Amino acid sequence: MAVYDALLNLRTAKKFEAMDVTDLVARAVAESGIKKGICTLFVPHTTAGISANEHFDPNVPHDILTTLAGLVPEDASYGHPEGNAPAHIKASIVGSSLCVPVREGQLALGRWQGIYLMEFDGPRSRQMHVTVIG
Amino acid sequence: MAVYDALLNLRTAKKFEAMDVTDLVARAVAESGIKKGICTLFVPHTTAGISANEHFDPNVPHDILTTLAGLVPEDASYGHPEGNAPAHIKASIVGSSLCVPVREGQLALGRWQGIYLMEFDGPRSRQMHVTVIG
Amino acid sequence: MAVYDALLNLRTAKKFEAMDVTDLVARAVAESGIKKGICTLFVPHTTAGISANEHFDPNVPHDILTTLAGLVPEDASYGHPEGNAPAHIKASIVGSSLCVPVREGQLALGRWQGIYLMEFDGPRSRQMHVTVIG
Repeated sequence: MAVYDALLNLRTAKKFEAMDVTDLVARAVAESGIKKGICTLFVPHTTAGISANEHFDPNVPHDILTTLAGLVPEDASYGHPEGNAPAHIKASIVGSSLCVPVREGQLALGRWQGIYLMEFDGPRSRQMHVTVIG
Repeated sequence: MAVYDALLNLRTAKKFEAMDVTDLVARAVAESGIKKGICTLFVPHTTAGISANEHFDPNVPHDILTTLAGLVPEDASYGHPEGNAPAHIKASIVGSSLCVPVREGQLALGRWQGIYLMEFDGPRSRQMHVTVIG
Repeated sequence: MAVYDALLNLRTAKKFEAMDVTDLVARAVAESGIKKGICTLFVPHTTAGISANEHFDPNVPHDILTTLAGLVPEDASYGHPEGNAPAHIKASIVGSSLCVPVREGQLALGRWQGIYLMEFDGPRSRQMHVTVIG
């Protein structure tokens, strides 16, 4: 049993963005040398989240961001004065952590699955903690 | 410390369905022989999710599915052309992974809690990865 | 490699409440003596959730609770007869588990991040399972 940690440094380009980090996370898993276990991901931010979803058709993450923007509109009334209340709310809906299995030294993602940093208040510098245990 | 892995093969029967997998996950935990640790669950799919919720009154999962269908309607306009954009969006809202504690060799679920595969685009063959660490 | 477990006993005061449990979780991590790994949290309840979000401006958790109350209204029609169907639905949206990295013996939370028990059907006695692995 071992623990391997990595910290991804990211830079988003848009206010709302699904940044595909699958390759970066896969590289961290390969570097860990761990063959069987879990890879847990965490964003240390309050206006971004993590999600696994399809990363072939770019319409999929776009539909997710657009639907969330409809459910949590920018122009509603919020108590938080910084103008980014919707980003905080979306972060709690999508979630800050994800736990992906590691099998045969690789992320056991489905055929269509990728891992996204979900940016709700960019553009910004962002980080993602990777912890592989196994 | 040990890692035990299992892969559940499931078959959903409806387009929208909350499939109770509590007993299957509990069996995997028992087979692991692990007494204290965590059981992490992951669906390698982009149109299904995982949730822990009440599994006594079947109205509860039905209310969840119905409310999500209202928030992410089938007949809205989406960019993804396959007709299942709402299923992808719901998967990101509900989430693809869940981490349940293991205590005294058993899932430390609450009295009313069960574990559901949340099907948003069935009927389909589905899988769930189980990883027990402890 | 070691596993440390703790059980937090909580008492919420309101129907909808974001209870800041960051200090309690941080104490459990310190007591574990684990320097690098993960801290997984789980609520064994079906009408409460867990979320990491800003814990400086109290408007942030308030905005989250208010927006969820708008998306899942109390006065809509639900099948579950106990009157707390919205609480169950919100629990599945926000999620029952969270996985936070541990680095240098501490929770690797972001500068503005705290951990909340999200109460959707209080006031009640609540518990949170803490499992630290590393």
